[in-house]
Amino acid sequence: MQASIVEDSRFQLNDYLADELARTYGTPLYVIDERSFRDRARRFVVNFPGDVSFASKANTSLGVIKMAHQEGCSIDVASEGEFRGALKAEVPPGDCRLHGNNKSAAELEFAVEKKIGKIIVDCFEEIEKLSKFEWTPPLLLRLAPGVDPHTHAKISTGQADTKFGFPIKDALRAIELCLNSRLPLIGFHCHVGSQLMDATSQSTAAKVLAQIAHKAQAELGFETKFLNIGGGLGVRYTAADNPISIEEFCHRVATTAREAIGPSASLGLEPGRSMVAEAGCTLYEVGVVKTAASGRKFVAVDGGLSDNPRPALYGARYELVWHGHSNEPSSIVTVSGKHCETDTLFAEVDAPSTVRAGDLVQVLCTGAYNASMANNYNGLRRPATVLVQENGGHLEIQRRETWDELHARDINLEAV
Amino acid sequence: MQASIVEDSRFQLNDYLADELARTYGTPLYVIDERSFRDRARRFVVNFPGDVSFASKANTSLGVIKMAHQEGCSIDVASEGEFRGALKAEVPPGDCRLHGNNKSAAELEFAVEKKIGKIIVDCFEEIEKLSKFEWTPPLLLRLAPGVDPHTHAKISTGQADTKFGFPIKDALRAIELCLNSRLPLIGFHCHVGSQLMDATSQSTAAKVLAQIAHKAQAELGFETKFLNIGGGLGVRYTAADNPISIEEFCHRVATTAREAIGPSASLGLEPGRSMVAEAGCTLYEVGVVKTAASGRKFVAVDGGLSDNPRPALYGARYELVWHGHSNEPSSIVTVSGKHCETDTLFAEVDAPSTVRAGDLVQVLCTGAYNASMANNYNGLRRPATVLVQENGGHLEIQRRETWDELHARDINLEAV
Repeated sequence: MQASIVEDSRFQLNDYLADELARTYGTPLYVIDERSFRDRARRFVVNFPGDVSFASKANTSLGVIKMAHQEGCSIDVASEGEFRGALKAEVPPGDCRLHGNNKSAAELEFAVEKKIGKIIVDCFEEIEKLSKFEWTPPLLLRLAPGVDPHTHAKISTGQADTKFGFPIKDALRAIELCLNSRLPLIGFHCHVGSQLMDATSQSTAAKVLAQIAHKAQAELGFETKFLNIGGGLGVRYTAADNPISIEEFCHRVATTAREAIGPSASLGLEPGRSMVAEAGCTLYEVGVVKTAASGRKFVAVDGGLSDNPRPALYGARYELVWHGHSNEPSSIVTVSGKHCETDTLFAEVDAPSTVRAGDLVQVLCTGAYNASMANNYNGLRRPATVLVQENGGHLEIQRRETWDELHARDINLEAV
Repeated sequence: MQASIVEDSRFQLNDYLADELARTYGTPLYVIDERSFRDRARRFVVNFPGDVSFASKANTSLGVIKMAHQEGCSIDVASEGEFRGALKAEVPPGDCRLHGNNKSAAELEFAVEKKIGKIIVDCFEEIEKLSKFEWTPPLLLRLAPGVDPHTHAKISTGQADTKFGFPIKDALRAIELCLNSRLPLIGFHCHVGSQLMDATSQSTAAKVLAQIAHKAQAELGFETKFLNIGGGLGVRYTAADNPISIEEFCHRVATTAREAIGPSASLGLEPGRSMVAEAGCTLYEVGVVKTAASGRKFVAVDGGLSDNPRPALYGARYELVWHGHSNEPSSIVTVSGKHCETDTLFAEVDAPSTVRAGDLVQVLCTGAYNASMANNYNGLRRPATVLVQENGGHLEIQRRETWDELHARDINLEAV
């Protein structure tokens, strides 16, 4: 096989648009490119022969959820809050699938009452809770296939040592319990982990699930109608990340799963990061440029771990595009935020040697797990999200937080 | 010297109150004990001969800020947002001190216009910005004293390789620039880092600052009127943490600083974590208890990294109190949250062997950097904060987020 040249499919603002968006909406600013996002959603929907469910935890902006649904995706929601978001984004409840390792009674009640499309059952306690309802939507059992995907520990979820799903050894007992409780079990689910560069772990997991399905057929007469292989396709945070294409991923997962399970079951996939990360970027303005006593050059931007916690949480690396400095020699800098701790955002990255206050810098591939994980640490307001539209315009789909919103939940101050 | 028995000064709910608060306000719930907090604030104010400034980033709840001010603290704010919080908490602007490594022009303008008490200047650009105002409040220069405090890398801030403050070699030039610009410079500031078990690093830093002060006196005729040694006293997250007492810390820092700087300068201290962490706890309800294929026992609670990101960010450890299981053999469990990733909150902690759904568990020492760093990941609403009052009652000072607030910033959905 020849070494392939990896195409850089990440959305990137040009100088003109970076300037215009910064002037119009201020910084820091999350940007989502409509064409990139819709295109990636469509490629999953067209290439995967089954249900493609957008994992809305990756980006909970209602506009993004609405676009995913418009492109033919169902919506994977991990909690009552995410389900409520999908409903607000005008997604019919039947097109939502509820996940969660610790669903509360209220969460299950709300989902059942609203007639959510599917519930992915995580544990025995949940089977018991669900058996008390008069009606439930179709159910999948989440199984932990015991596949170690060799990704970051915090985003490995399908190995034997996980809080998620039923251990394989308990699967038959769980199926039997569902059948005895006359619950509408239709199949199985797994999710091995995230940011995986090929489909190997997912394919292995699909085979493990198919084995269980065959065993359930043989021993309990249970016919599997649905097999959901989860998500996990990686994205290009830096040039070191070389994920296979969406087409290849869909093809490989579907082929293995189809071979393993046979012709009668429908298939499902749950891309989140791989659908939205590369369609988004973050725009910051440079404030202070400083050389420390150590000799390290620090470039401070007007955001930080409050808008992108991934470097601090996972040691995540990103690539930056500096605006207004074409053809200039570069030097190595550390980009920090404006937080009152050592919030190194991007350690030892290239920057133009004359980088200065007022410059704009764009961080690529921030469409996933940035806005949805943002906080107000140090009294910073969460940024706006702007959609760069297919028609060439731009539309604010999430406004910047107001100062008043920062303290809207503080009450009874007069009694203190 | 005899080995001293460390007194556990952390606030802890009894079974009765844990039940009552959970029933009244729901879980997860942040709890702050008024007596513990006021007592710690008073001990700093009484024992430190100078300005004690509560670092409000540790807990930005307006009720907490108001109590700190009532006990005689000024308020350290790290941004316009934190300053606005202090003002809403009825703190006079003159009692606030503005920090920040990358203060924006708007931030400085707002602070000057509102007549904030002091500004701690972080870099040359800021001197330039401030010199354009007709009036500014008294200024301190933040210096990086080059002291490595040997704490977690993300909370070390005073070493030579830091984004904060002026390198020592630039201090004289910065002082001269302030004097030439006729800015009201009154002294110096440093902050070496956080969660330090004694006062050694702060004392060393105070000596470094005093050397600069003496040099500035000799070479520029500048008389230092104020020396702020920052914060940094640690707290007892687990029994492995044995910080010296507030009294001892105040005494050691003040003595060293006074000896080094001489009698004429006032002193300042900025405790945050050490004032509020031990006064707070978090109450969760247990949902699912599950044994994974690995044999590990997982106990899932109804919160997670959205309400306490410190385990994921810093590998922080905490101690737990399980309610309703007295005198029962314990087993080792891993406490996870309800997030859609491997959000191990507390790995390998003791739990009663019969721990089950509906049990309440209390996490000690969460008063700092929990509520102020909380987010909405996975559509979880940020918890309420309840004050356990000195009079025996309880008062909600920050209400739980509403479902509607989760999507209040999503706009223009009809145009997507």
